[in-house]
Amino acid sequence: QQSTFLKQDSLYKFIQPFAVVQSWATYTMGEKARLSPDESLEPVVNRLNITARRARLGFKGTPYKNFSYYLSLFYDNLGRDRYSGTRAGINDGQIGVWDAFMSWKMSSKHDLATLTFGYFRPQLSRECITAYTAVNSFEKSLSQTYIRQHMMGKNHGRTMGINIGGLKKEGFVSMNYNVGLFNNNTTSSQTETAGVLYSPLLTGRLAFSFGDPEMDKYGISYDINYFNKRKGVTIGVNASRQGHTDIYNLNMTKGVDVLVNYLNFNMDGEWMALDRSTEVKQVHARTGHIRGGYNLIINKKLFIEPTFLMTFYDGQEGGQFNGQDRIYDAGVNWYMNKKNCKLGLHYVWQEGHGKNGYTDGVTFEKGDYVGLGFLIML
Amino acid sequence: QQSTFLKQDSLYKFIQPFAVVQSWATYTMGEKARLSPDESLEPVVNRLNITARRARLGFKGTPYKNFSYYLSLFYDNLGRDRYSGTRAGINDGQIGVWDAFMSWKMSSKHDLATLTFGYFRPQLSRECITAYTAVNSFEKSLSQTYIRQHMMGKNHGRTMGINIGGLKKEGFVSMNYNVGLFNNNTTSSQTETAGVLYSPLLTGRLAFSFGDPEMDKYGISYDINYFNKRKGVTIGVNASRQGHTDIYNLNMTKGVDVLVNYLNFNMDGEWMALDRSTEVKQVHARTGHIRGGYNLIINKKLFIEPTFLMTFYDGQEGGQFNGQDRIYDAGVNWYMNKKNCKLGLHYVWQEGHGKNGYTDGVTFEKGDYVGLGFLIML
Amino acid sequence: QQSTFLKQDSLYKFIQPFAVVQSWATYTMGEKARLSPDESLEPVVNRLNITARRARLGFKGTPYKNFSYYLSLFYDNLGRDRYSGTRAGINDGQIGVWDAFMSWKMSSKHDLATLTFGYFRPQLSRECITAYTAVNSFEKSLSQTYIRQHMMGKNHGRTMGINIGGLKKEGFVSMNYNVGLFNNNTTSSQTETAGVLYSPLLTGRLAFSFGDPEMDKYGISYDINYFNKRKGVTIGVNASRQGHTDIYNLNMTKGVDVLVNYLNFNMDGEWMALDRSTEVKQVHARTGHIRGGYNLIINKKLFIEPTFLMTFYDGQEGGQFNGQDRIYDAGVNWYMNKKNCKLGLHYVWQEGHGKNGYTDGVTFEKGDYVGLGFLIML
Repeated sequence: QQSTFLKQDSLYKFIQPFAVVQSWATYTMGEKARLSPDESLEPVVNRLNITARRARLGFKGTPYKNFSYYLSLFYDNLGRDRYSGTRAGINDGQIGVWDAFMSWKMSSKHDLATLTFGYFRPQLSRECITAYTAVNSFEKSLSQTYIRQHMMGKNHGRTMGINIGGLKKEGFVSMNYNVGLFNNNTTSSQTETAGVLYSPLLTGRLAFSFGDPEMDKYGISYDINYFNKRKGVTIGVNASRQGHTDIYNLNMTKGVDVLVNYLNFNMDGEWMALDRSTEVKQVHARTGHIRGGYNLIINKKLFIEPTFLMTFYDGQEGGQFNGQDRIYDAGVNWYMNKKNCKLGLHYVWQEGHGKNGYTDGVTFEKGDYVGLGFLIML
Repeated sequence: QQSTFLKQDSLYKFIQPFAVVQSWATYTMGEKARLSPDESLEPVVNRLNITARRARLGFKGTPYKNFSYYLSLFYDNLGRDRYSGTRAGINDGQIGVWDAFMSWKMSSKHDLATLTFGYFRPQLSRECITAYTAVNSFEKSLSQTYIRQHMMGKNHGRTMGINIGGLKKEGFVSMNYNVGLFNNNTTSSQTETAGVLYSPLLTGRLAFSFGDPEMDKYGISYDINYFNKRKGVTIGVNASRQGHTDIYNLNMTKGVDVLVNYLNFNMDGEWMALDRSTEVKQVHARTGHIRGGYNLIINKKLFIEPTFLMTFYDGQEGGQFNGQDRIYDAGVNWYMNKKNCKLGLHYVWQEGHGKNGYTDGVTFEKGDYVGLGFLIML
Repeated sequence: QQSTFLKQDSLYKFIQPFAVVQSWATYTMGEKARLSPDESLEPVVNRLNITARRARLGFKGTPYKNFSYYLSLFYDNLGRDRYSGTRAGINDGQIGVWDAFMSWKMSSKHDLATLTFGYFRPQLSRECITAYTAVNSFEKSLSQTYIRQHMMGKNHGRTMGINIGGLKKEGFVSMNYNVGLFNNNTTSSQTETAGVLYSPLLTGRLAFSFGDPEMDKYGISYDINYFNKRKGVTIGVNASRQGHTDIYNLNMTKGVDVLVNYLNFNMDGEWMALDRSTEVKQVHARTGHIRGGYNLIINKKLFIEPTFLMTFYDGQEGGQFNGQDRIYDAGVNWYMNKKNCKLGLHYVWQEGHGKNGYTDGVTFEKGDYVGLGFLIML
């Protein structure tokens, strides 16, 4: 006797491997560090650095009808020099889990409700949920790190939870919603626990597209360049809330994002407010970016996109990160096989003050760099 | 010139990927912890916790006739909150090796001798060698942890070694034996060495089945629910022995286990004695469990199994773990595609005293919990 | 519009999994250790140790014409006892990245230029770039560790970089060259940075083969036993150079290597000089090996190879490693399916003094051992 509730569907593949590597060669200029205690910041020697900025390996599949899974391992930042101007960790060969989730599309008839659970990105902030393979700047916007640190205490932006979301198209307008409930095991003085107190992380996002929709079927990873296929605008509103924990009384993020695609032209941007209340104070910060690109098609063969990015963070005194942080990026991408295989050459410059990802005023200050990137997706 | 000793057999697949995820959502009540030094135990706030309790990814295959291998990686406990009532580790994305072994069936004519070597479970204690995908309680019996800690100093219960085992059926009775020799690199004050002294870990198990056998061909992983296909009883005797090492003079386990399947009814149990002699003392402990389930088949489509588990540990003063530890579990499983896809809803309550997995009397005391589990095997 | 610059080639597989395990059972005699501070070296008990000396799992493929990649993970040394006579690390289940690189063969017409980039072995020293699956001694030559430690500060011998190399055959003579530029993130008092100063690691190798060439097409991994198919001699010259860093003014390696294959007879050897200058001193060391084997073909079925290895290190006072280190290995290999499946039984003995991999004179001194090895490659 075998239950007929779930029928395995031979039309779908069970286990499909995939891999992505984003290789970078950067030349950093003007990076500063404090070389010994009690000294001030001094420049380190300019340097070339070759690194596997992102390296992922995984498996995905759809073992049952409407039921799919996704598992991705990472060995990012292999070879990164601490004193290169990029912002990332270091890695001497470690591998870990990046994404691990399952999705159940509740109905075959409509796309209004998909349940996603496991270890994945809370659906909030366009930049946080856009694939790094899709961004047309050299690196993702710096705002992503601040939003993730504020909301769930970790740069990688993944946590265990459950999300329900859907898609609905009505003529010229389409709607995309997501609401989620997540663990946040970073709100304690101990690691890997919510703490003595407990409060779940609640997230929500609602987006409307005008003209061509941004996706044909529901998914939890977003795109930027549609290679001249889309004429449409998408505007999203985002919010997260977590209540009383060991380290704060209330923690919130809220903001808006936008994506504009009109044939050759691609533009996206975001503005997010990060608020936290503790017993003794309230701290506010703002972060976001604006980014544009234009697809040049040369001789009907070469697909070249010049791009520009400006991204910012402004935080009040008393917060985990404060002061000003700015990154600017001007570059050009060459899509050799759309996003599956691309080259990019960018110049990235940074400035700021206070205590944040650019500098803490005492032990480090980031330099500028020229970067050559190669991304291959299998 | 190519040796003809080993012929690759194209009928067998070389490398087959597989994956299993056991997702849990638990709600813990009454967990206690010492929140700061010099204070007594206090309750922490009840909480929901979403975790990938077990998450495995691996490869297996049979590259040569009668020669197979099995490799499994794990990223268990992703998202687990330290203050949830479950007993397990925590994990922020680490991945490691779970099983890595090879098996050579020595003859194609009979099943009397299979040599297994590598990193795997010494064949001892039914609970220790039954797959977690097969148990019908929410979690495996707590006895497993105590047996493994006693025998080889690690909860995961894997170590490098070599085992020979086989199967023989004669009418109404069938016999299954295993004898093994293993490293135990936990018997020193240093990590990863047997120590200044050396003594191998020797293990053995002998089981007789009456009526239907428990397996058709030899294997090193056991089952519980045969979905009404089996009418049989299996009784096993188990023993391990390790001689003089840096930390003890003699370390032994011995015990009996039983599996009863009669159509809808499934019952298994185990009783193990854990003995250790050092220069100055002898310490004894006992551990085991009893567990039952009944398959309800509703409308010939739904396969529902109510289950009950009682599991215990009693340890003498002076041992690594002492006092009493009890876990009770009452729940119901819904097999949507046999063991490949199942849901379970269980209530788990715990009690005890002394210094063990339930409490140490000073820094922690486990709470009770309701758990919803979803297991998928690919 | 899709760029036609890169065409995916369906004739090639995208993602092919592979796995290799080298299992060892060793019996160590006469290993010594300092068991407590202020004591002298004492023997530990002789011991059997079962270990997965090397265990690799990976993926490779050729997604585009002339463009291939290779990714290998490792969980080496699972189960290794610190007090076994072998020289290696310990591992309780960790997995990491071993190799991760991509290769672009620049022309389909000739084999003169292949660009390799990523995380791989700088092409230098025959022993360092010969696959462990290919060596006919029980373990690779001890010289490998010293060359890698000297050149890039890590035993595994991998670092991020870029290499260009090629192959050219003209009648009786063929030529193989490689030049590379690599990060070295071990030249600072901090981990994972070149340091305040910066100097890239430059490497080069040039080899000439007389008679049969050693490879038909360009590759970055070398072989030893050609199973009676090759009549040829290869001689290579090697050098590396790294300039001013935080820990030295100049760091160089240079040397010659040789491979001789004449039907049943296989011989390879190497001699390398390791030189380092700091502000206050110059330190020199020499290391290398010589190794031979003879293929016995018994009854046209069994492929048996007796082998012998002698390997040495001599370092001046003041270097990271100094004094004398020697390993001798006499053994026999049985190739059951060429290098895909082989057994080896070897006796390995060691001697030395000073401060190096054999002994530091104070806390450890390696023992001798008998080893039984089994290697399977899938």
